[in-house]
Amino acid sequence: MADLMNSDVFLAFCTYATIVVLKMMFMAPLTGYFRMTRKAFSNWEDTAMSKSPEARKKMLQTNPDVERVRRCHLNDLENIIPFVVIGLLYALTGPDLSTALLHFRVFVGSRFIHTVSYVLALPQPSRGLSWVVGMITTFSMAYRVLTTALYL
Amino acid sequence: MADLMNSDVFLAFCTYATIVVLKMMFMAPLTGYFRMTRKAFSNWEDTAMSKSPEARKKMLQTNPDVERVRRCHLNDLENIIPFVVIGLLYALTGPDLSTALLHFRVFVGSRFIHTVSYVLALPQPSRGLSWVVGMITTFSMAYRVLTTALYL
Amino acid sequence: MADLMNSDVFLAFCTYATIVVLKMMFMAPLTGYFRMTRKAFSNWEDTAMSKSPEARKKMLQTNPDVERVRRCHLNDLENIIPFVVIGLLYALTGPDLSTALLHFRVFVGSRFIHTVSYVLALPQPSRGLSWVVGMITTFSMAYRVLTTALYL
Repeated sequence: MADLMNSDVFLAFCTYATIVVLKMMFMAPLTGYFRMTRKAFSNWEDTAMSKSPEARKKMLQTNPDVERVRRCHLNDLENIIPFVVIGLLYALTGPDLSTALLHFRVFVGSRFIHTVSYVLALPQPSRGLSWVVGMITTFSMAYRVLTTALYL
Repeated sequence: MADLMNSDVFLAFCTYATIVVLKMMFMAPLTGYFRMTRKAFSNWEDTAMSKSPEARKKMLQTNPDVERVRRCHLNDLENIIPFVVIGLLYALTGPDLSTALLHFRVFVGSRFIHTVSYVLALPQPSRGLSWVVGMITTFSMAYRVLTTALYL
Repeated sequence: MADLMNSDVFLAFCTYATIVVLKMMFMAPLTGYFRMTRKAFSNWEDTAMSKSPEARKKMLQTNPDVERVRRCHLNDLENIIPFVVIGLLYALTGPDLSTALLHFRVFVGSRFIHTVSYVLALPQPSRGLSWVVGMITTFSMAYRVLTTALYL
């Protein structure tokens, strides 16, 4: 156990994985914020701040801002989890520290840019490009895992 | 390898992570149960138990009970996966056994309460509170990871 | 660290986990392909290839083929992530190599069949059966983790 924590590459993985997972978790309160300010909920029991049944029904309609944040959250799940899984295995293959740091930093940076592009609806290709950069980084780590640890 | 499995904290992590992931997986058969009893499916090929095309089309409409379980499942993905990732790194930082157990138990307990609150549509703040407790537990573990393993 | 990578079971886990996570990631470009060919997007900024506001609005309608791939992707998240988490802990419990390989191969195979069944809308029970096989494989690994590493 102490072994793992003595590896700089593994420490770097811990740091960047935690940061990017925290970023992903932050999408949940952001969704909550948009739900509150836009008064758009998905559950009947969440609309109890209003008394009138009609007002409550209206609060159950979808809101484009809420849906946008939710899509961004789902995209995080689809990209950040693969990074964490493959990044963990990658860190265990013992790559160069500088190469590993490059992968971790580029991925985490790309996901922050992706979130900003998505939530603020910046014109394309800002969102698309940041998504592609993250994908390529994860593929590059997967390539190293498969070439050093292949056992079929 | 034997090393990891000799650590009580790591064994506790294995136990609680497995339990809470099994709980998350249980949402899938629960969705299936509601789809069957409510006759609400998303795929044309799933409605083949009926012969009439109109009856099959009707079975493709969304059902509020099914959607509720699906939202609960997605919320599990958004919260339990971060717990598993950050909890694994947390267990490797060598925390006190009692502190670690407290984190794991509170998180897993909060997610069971969350599921019951969500599926039974209990009045707020039961669902909201259980969600917040789980988030705080994960943040607390992330704080420990970042303060003991920071390598930027 | 070298320790883990000297274990054949762990190497096999690395290989199969990476392959099945890459399969999951492949759903994203596949969604992109269907969005492009069906001209069905979720974000206003993604429809900028057209000038007319009406044409752009039309491109924001949902398309059944796109939705099908997205459901398949979400189903991957719901099943492949639990496999990766429980499979990692399972690999650390030191199972027989042949038993471990059987679990990994059956799971990964079942998910490839699941994807083909889902995307091509093959008649049931091809999709349902492949999903069940994957679930049972993960449960079987979870059983081993809980019986060898239980610490409540």
